[in-house]
Amino acid sequence: MTFRAKHLLGIEHLAPDEITTLLDLADQYVDLNRRDVKHSDTLAGLTQINMFFENSTRTQASFEIAGKRLGADVMNMAMQASSVKKGETLIDTALTLNAMHPDLLVVRHPHSGAVDLLAQKVNCAVLNAGDGRHEHPTQALLDALTIRRAKERLHRLSIAICGDIAHSRVARSNILLLGKMENRVRLIGPPTLMPSGMEEFGVEVFEDMREGLKDVDVVMMLRLQKERMDGGFIPSEREYYHRYGLDPEKLSHAKSDAIIMHPGPMNRGVEIDGVLADDINRSVIQEQVEMGVAVRMAAMELLVRTRREAAQEQGVMV
Amino acid sequence: MTFRAKHLLGIEHLAPDEITTLLDLADQYVDLNRRDVKHSDTLAGLTQINMFFENSTRTQASFEIAGKRLGADVMNMAMQASSVKKGETLIDTALTLNAMHPDLLVVRHPHSGAVDLLAQKVNCAVLNAGDGRHEHPTQALLDALTIRRAKERLHRLSIAICGDIAHSRVARSNILLLGKMENRVRLIGPPTLMPSGMEEFGVEVFEDMREGLKDVDVVMMLRLQKERMDGGFIPSEREYYHRYGLDPEKLSHAKSDAIIMHPGPMNRGVEIDGVLADDINRSVIQEQVEMGVAVRMAAMELLVRTRREAAQEQGVMV
Amino acid sequence: MTFRAKHLLGIEHLAPDEITTLLDLADQYVDLNRRDVKHSDTLAGLTQINMFFENSTRTQASFEIAGKRLGADVMNMAMQASSVKKGETLIDTALTLNAMHPDLLVVRHPHSGAVDLLAQKVNCAVLNAGDGRHEHPTQALLDALTIRRAKERLHRLSIAICGDIAHSRVARSNILLLGKMENRVRLIGPPTLMPSGMEEFGVEVFEDMREGLKDVDVVMMLRLQKERMDGGFIPSEREYYHRYGLDPEKLSHAKSDAIIMHPGPMNRGVEIDGVLADDINRSVIQEQVEMGVAVRMAAMELLVRTRREAAQEQGVMV
Repeated sequence: MTFRAKHLLGIEHLAPDEITTLLDLADQYVDLNRRDVKHSDTLAGLTQINMFFENSTRTQASFEIAGKRLGADVMNMAMQASSVKKGETLIDTALTLNAMHPDLLVVRHPHSGAVDLLAQKVNCAVLNAGDGRHEHPTQALLDALTIRRAKERLHRLSIAICGDIAHSRVARSNILLLGKMENRVRLIGPPTLMPSGMEEFGVEVFEDMREGLKDVDVVMMLRLQKERMDGGFIPSEREYYHRYGLDPEKLSHAKSDAIIMHPGPMNRGVEIDGVLADDINRSVIQEQVEMGVAVRMAAMELLVRTRREAAQEQGVMV
Repeated sequence: MTFRAKHLLGIEHLAPDEITTLLDLADQYVDLNRRDVKHSDTLAGLTQINMFFENSTRTQASFEIAGKRLGADVMNMAMQASSVKKGETLIDTALTLNAMHPDLLVVRHPHSGAVDLLAQKVNCAVLNAGDGRHEHPTQALLDALTIRRAKERLHRLSIAICGDIAHSRVARSNILLLGKMENRVRLIGPPTLMPSGMEEFGVEVFEDMREGLKDVDVVMMLRLQKERMDGGFIPSEREYYHRYGLDPEKLSHAKSDAIIMHPGPMNRGVEIDGVLADDINRSVIQEQVEMGVAVRMAAMELLVRTRREAAQEQGVMV
Repeated sequence: MTFRAKHLLGIEHLAPDEITTLLDLADQYVDLNRRDVKHSDTLAGLTQINMFFENSTRTQASFEIAGKRLGADVMNMAMQASSVKKGETLIDTALTLNAMHPDLLVVRHPHSGAVDLLAQKVNCAVLNAGDGRHEHPTQALLDALTIRRAKERLHRLSIAICGDIAHSRVARSNILLLGKMENRVRLIGPPTLMPSGMEEFGVEVFEDMREGLKDVDVVMMLRLQKERMDGGFIPSEREYYHRYGLDPEKLSHAKSDAIIMHPGPMNRGVEIDGVLADDINRSVIQEQVEMGVAVRMAAMELLVRTRREAAQEQGVMV
């Protein structure tokens, strides 16, 4: 067992062996989730609180199902309707919840760094479910598990991440994870949606899809996050699809067995051709969702184990 | 055991012996729910997801309580606040949830047929909690159980369904169920709220309450669904109550032991006199709610059993 | 065991020995909640429904965690989005839920007296989670537990309640509880936020903070409830802080070991200086939240016990 993290704040803080440990455990949960009875008592008696300051159907549902299947008492906080409106600060909200002795706190927040800040103030394990443009570690981990199962390895692969890089914490966490596992990452997107200096992360940057997709093993499309493009350049959907939407012709430049990924929710006909998205021979989009539950179960179990071991050691030392 | 359905999409698809099986099992759950400890492990380890695209206090609460009492892991999806807003289609939302391996999906949707469509795309059992003007099968089943317990039979009864027939999936499902069980159904309502051609369903249509209520065993009032009357004729509440609201005088035309039903939520003084609604000798409105939980418990248990038996058979065949 | 109440509607109805019984049991739950596994089966098989007609992060979360840790099936009703909108009355909503056989109903409502009314209509135990300007009994009980643990007694203390007395059910329940336990209560606030005739409750009224805080053991700050000040006088935050906000200088008039309390959510820099709020030697604000979960667990357990004993006695009598 090599997992030492006390929080899951970002891929940045995970070592390759920790990533492998987590994915190995998640693989077991994939099997469990496919069974009829898919409940265990791993987190029985523990309290998990989901604090979503941004709405998200799939991520919140995934964490909720993960916790319930592990036997935790799971609580969702609708943070829009919360004390935040009454003028309370993020920190006060966190301290309040902390005083209720949760064991796991799952947080999504529109501001980069907000989840890290929060983790410093509470006693329990914090899982980042997406903070601003910063990180979305469980998404990168589920993507990694999906790739590893499809390609039977997670190293020396050539992976293209395509589209709205600028607004994407998914891209950021994936770049970090895939880099740590020694893959070649390419970023493809319009200059207006491509931050400058990305080469520092050890990636190659392309403006042209055909050029960028050349011989890749994995094509990872991103969602066009119009809701984050306040004031800036918003491409027309038609133009965007023409130049950056994944269609059979563009895909033909990738390897013949390249898989197609998308973190969802998809804008069909904008980021990706609907038929390609549903092509069970190429698209692993549904499998990504399935892996999401398994990865979150594994992450929560490992964080709790780390803390229990630390508590035991402290007990012995005293 | 005669229950073969893999989904509960509408009364249309149920045979009379399946209805009887379901009501018999529900009767047992009525007894359980009246006990102090009312929890079983029938659905332990299974995942139930409630997807309500329309708000509904009572129906969602009823399904949630039903699932939790059977030991399922129950999750509510607030679909208004969901990915639907980010441009995702109903089918993509369904496929996403499906990938998380739920066992039971309870769906309410404003469009007729949406739940059927969804059932074709997922692997789990789907329960229709109301789709547009189409069907609301658990409401008809709970009404049937209420009638059977009050009248000690569910055939050869004369039942009047009164009011806003045009907008009512409750009416539609009840007409189908009561017809299958060989009862005489009468529809009473203003011509503006009565679809043409209802006689095809084997019912009698009346415009006058006194005439229609003559000698019936059961008076089933409907809610005036103003929120669905966009642009069309909206009767004044006062005029409506005068002509179609149930009061003691109109009720006197029914049999002296006729029971009063209403699916709720009630508009007192519009569809029904408040004193009549609360008359414990005539009104079974609260009992309908009680039967609702029991019927939903029975429906979910039977759907899971059907699937488990099918899985076992497949296992044996291979 | 001296606890006879069938509902927890207000401190008004509790005798001093019942308060002591509840706080003693809550003390045990404080210990349980600090453990790793903090789940019991005390309420297993029972159904708890939270009906919040006003939003509240902390109170609803506290009741939800309390119920789940005791093993109850807990359900939250979002009452804004409910049948109330369809014209249903509060009583009909209550009767509907009652027909689903809940065992515990936790209710917050904007109108004083609404929760009492509701309790008369249902068969289960009702807990008042705040009704209008009337009572908020679990808040007063958690405050009492916090004081008792900090001061090692709950009598013959001098306690100042400061700020917006007029809009505060917290103040009202605390005045009643602290009076019953034989403490000296002082109210401090601007005349515009101080109801007339408070002296009838056996309290002293002060307009000046320095004068009112003189030698008190406990300083209980209240939230400035701007959302309830419709049309009336609203003080400027700056002026309010200057005259009534707790700062080190004003606090210096209290006893040197006086503790600082606030029911939250706090407006830092309005009701209280941020540094004081975080001072772990003086402020017990986080501990109040912790006590909240314990007090609610104890209250629910005692209400269920009262009802079980009553049911058993009736069984024996018959």
